[in-house]
Amino acid sequence: MLIKTAEIICVGTELLMGQTLNTNSQFLAKEMVSLGIASYHQVVVGDNHERLAEQIKESASRADLIILTGGLGPTTDDITMGVAADVAGKELVFDEESFKNITEYFRKMCRNMPKNNRKQAMLPEGCTILKNNNGTAPGAMFEYSCPTDEDPDRVVHFVLLPGPPSEMSLMFTEQVRPLLEKMSDTKFVTKFVHLFGIGESDAADRISDLIDNQTNPTIAPYAMTGECYFRITQRIEKGEEEKDLITPIIDTMRERFGQCIYEVGDRPLKQVAYDLLLEKGKTVCFAESCTAGMVSSEFVDIPGASQVFMGSVVTYGNKVKSNLLGVSTDVLDNLGAVSRECAQEMAEGARKLLGTDIAVSITGIAGPTGESAAKPVGLVYLAISDENGTEVKEVHLSGNRMRVRRVAVLHAFNMIRMRLS
Amino acid sequence: MLIKTAEIICVGTELLMGQTLNTNSQFLAKEMVSLGIASYHQVVVGDNHERLAEQIKESASRADLIILTGGLGPTTDDITMGVAADVAGKELVFDEESFKNITEYFRKMCRNMPKNNRKQAMLPEGCTILKNNNGTAPGAMFEYSCPTDEDPDRVVHFVLLPGPPSEMSLMFTEQVRPLLEKMSDTKFVTKFVHLFGIGESDAADRISDLIDNQTNPTIAPYAMTGECYFRITQRIEKGEEEKDLITPIIDTMRERFGQCIYEVGDRPLKQVAYDLLLEKGKTVCFAESCTAGMVSSEFVDIPGASQVFMGSVVTYGNKVKSNLLGVSTDVLDNLGAVSRECAQEMAEGARKLLGTDIAVSITGIAGPTGESAAKPVGLVYLAISDENGTEVKEVHLSGNRMRVRRVAVLHAFNMIRMRLS
Repeated sequence: MLIKTAEIICVGTELLMGQTLNTNSQFLAKEMVSLGIASYHQVVVGDNHERLAEQIKESASRADLIILTGGLGPTTDDITMGVAADVAGKELVFDEESFKNITEYFRKMCRNMPKNNRKQAMLPEGCTILKNNNGTAPGAMFEYSCPTDEDPDRVVHFVLLPGPPSEMSLMFTEQVRPLLEKMSDTKFVTKFVHLFGIGESDAADRISDLIDNQTNPTIAPYAMTGECYFRITQRIEKGEEEKDLITPIIDTMRERFGQCIYEVGDRPLKQVAYDLLLEKGKTVCFAESCTAGMVSSEFVDIPGASQVFMGSVVTYGNKVKSNLLGVSTDVLDNLGAVSRECAQEMAEGARKLLGTDIAVSITGIAGPTGESAAKPVGLVYLAISDENGTEVKEVHLSGNRMRVRRVAVLHAFNMIRMRLS
Repeated sequence: MLIKTAEIICVGTELLMGQTLNTNSQFLAKEMVSLGIASYHQVVVGDNHERLAEQIKESASRADLIILTGGLGPTTDDITMGVAADVAGKELVFDEESFKNITEYFRKMCRNMPKNNRKQAMLPEGCTILKNNNGTAPGAMFEYSCPTDEDPDRVVHFVLLPGPPSEMSLMFTEQVRPLLEKMSDTKFVTKFVHLFGIGESDAADRISDLIDNQTNPTIAPYAMTGECYFRITQRIEKGEEEKDLITPIIDTMRERFGQCIYEVGDRPLKQVAYDLLLEKGKTVCFAESCTAGMVSSEFVDIPGASQVFMGSVVTYGNKVKSNLLGVSTDVLDNLGAVSRECAQEMAEGARKLLGTDIAVSITGIAGPTGESAAKPVGLVYLAISDENGTEVKEVHLSGNRMRVRRVAVLHAFNMIRMRLS
C-alpha cells in the first residue's frame, strides 16, 4: 500500500509539562517532507492509556502512517507499545533476540540489568522489530486494519520509536526510512546548497527570481545558526522521465554566491575543512579563548579527526595565554586579550607549541559581561597561521553568549577552508 | 469561571514541515504547570481553515482554555484570528488603537507599513486585546460558549498569541498570565531530584514502593543522556492547608540513593561542580583526549566560569600528551593512551603546566574505531589531581561516539563534585 499522509504522535508527560523540548517532531517532520509524505497534524499526548488510545484511533482515521515516539521505556508508565498493539488488536509476545540485545547492552556497560527491562522485549505479534543500536528499547512497525466506507481494505501503518532523540533518529534513518521509501509513488530528489558568510534573507533576495517562479523543482531557503542553506527538491512521479532539473539551478547559484557556497551536498563546514586538510596532508591545532574548546570538540566529532588534528590549548585566563602561548604582556596589558595582535600571537604560539602545519586562534567577547564601548559583545578576532604567515580576521557577531561562541566556531572552520581552497 | 485544563495549539505549516522547531509549546506547557492548569494534549496544525476550525472545536470540547500561537501575520495564509473568531461566532472588527500601534511600530523601525498590515488590527468583537510590545500582531483573549449536557453554561477561553517566540512569551508573561492566575483554584509545587551514576530503571526500581503508591504528590522518573531525575509534584487545592508532602519523599530518596543525588533543584551537574569550586576557592583545568575540549567548552557555558577556570589542554595525539603534559613514553608505548596510568600522568601534568589547584583528565575510546579486545569502545579513564594526590576512575559507557563523549564529560564534572563535597 502507498503512504501519502502521516501523523506524528509524541508520547510523554515530560513533553506536556514542558520539561523536554520536542525535537523529535521536527526531525520526523523534515523526514516526511523529504519522503514526499504530507503531514497535517502533530500531537503530543501523555502516558495515559485512554487518551493515548483515543489519539491513535483519531490519527489513524486521518492518515496512512502513524509515527509514535516515546513511552517505550522499562517502567510501568511506559505504555506506548502496549496501547498501540491494543488498538491494532495484537498481543504482545516475548522476543528472544530483543531480550538478548538488551541483556548485551547492560553487559557492555558492566551494569546489572534491572528486572523490569525484560518488559522492553515484549513486542506486538508479527511486527517488524526495529533494533535499537543506541539504547535498550527496540522499536516496532506493524499494520492496523482500519476500514472506511470508501476503502474496506484500508490499512494504516504504525511505527513506534523510542523517545530519546539519539536513539529515535538513528533507528528511523537506518531502519524505517528505507522501508518507507518503497511505499511512496513519488520520488523526490533533493540537493542542498550550503552557504557561509551571508544571511538567509539576503541570500533569498539574490535569487528571488528563481524562488518566485518555482514550480518543479522547489527552492526553499533555511537559516541555521550562523549559516544558511537552500533545499532544491525535484518531484518525479513514477513512470516519468528522470530529467535533471536541479543542476541548472545550482549553476546559477554558483554564479551569484561565489565563494559563499561551501558545499553542494551534505557535508557540514567542519567536514569540508577536514577534507581539505586531509587532501593537502596538513595538520592543525587550535588556540581557543572565548570558544573554550568548542572548536576542537566539534572538529573531533568527525571520525578520523586524529589524522589531521593533534591537539589544542584552551587559554581562558590571560596568564595561560602568556605562559603557554607566549602572548606578550605588552599586548595583553595595552591592547587586551580581544585584539588583532593577541589573536595573531595566539595562533603563532600554538603552531610552535603543538608543532602543526596550521594553527587557528579565536579570542572574543561572548558576553554577557566583559564588553566595553570599544569592544562590544560579539567582537571576535580569529587568526590562521601557517608557513606562509599569519592572517587575522575581525568579525562582529550578534546574539547571546552561546550564539556568539557557536558562530565563532564556524568562522574558525571557514578560515581553514578559505586558506586551503 | 475556573480554568482547570488547557490545550496548546500551534498553527503553522513551517512547524508541520519541520522548518521551525516548536519552542512555543514547551514555554506554554511550563507556564501551565506553574499555574496549576493541567494539559493533556498539544497539537500542531497547518494554516488550513477547515482543519484548524475542526481542531479548535475538538480541543474546546476537552479543555477550559485553548491557547493558540501563530498565524496572526499580515498575509493571506495567516488565518488563526479569523478562524477562532468564526468558531466562537464573533465578527472581526477594526480596532483603531491596535492600528495606531502597528503604524507606530513601523515608524520606529523607519520602515513603510505595507497595506496588508491593516488586517492585523481586525480583532474579534468584545475581546480583550493583547498589545504586542515586541512586534506588529496584537493578540486576543475571548470566550466561546460551548455547552455540554452536564454544563449548559460551559464557557471555554481562547487566547491567541503571535508565533515568534520573543513576541509570544512577552505577551503571555505580561498580559495573559496575570489574568489566568485569577482563574485557577489549584496550585502545584514541583521539586526535581537529580541523580548521577544510576540508570533510570534502576533508580525507579529502588523506590518502586513510593512510585506504586503515589497519589499526591506524584513521582515520575526521567532519563537524560547519562543521568536521570525524579519529578515530585504536590497538588494543593485553594483553601487547603499547605502541608509540605514533598520533603519526606526527598528524605527517603536521600536514604536510598545517597551520593548519587547531586542536586535537589534545578542546577545541572556542571553548575554543582562550579559552585563547589567557587565556594572552596579552588581553580581548575582539564586535560582532554577523547572529549577533545567538550568538558572545557561546556564548563564555560556557565557565566563567570573565568573565576575558577584557567584553561585546558586538548591532547589528542600521543606526541602532544608527552610533549605538553609529560606523559612518559613508557606508559604510552606499553600501556597505551587509554590507561589508568596515562590518565594519572595527564592530570598531574596539566595541573603543573597550568598551575591550578585541581586538574581533571579524560582519556578513552569514543569509537567507532580504535577499540581492541582489551579496550572496547566506551572504555574511559578519568583522573583528578590536587594537593592531596591523584585518583583515577575507570568507566564503561555505551552508545555511539557522541554519547560516549557526552557521558564522559558528565563524569569529569562528577569527579570534581565527589572530591569537593
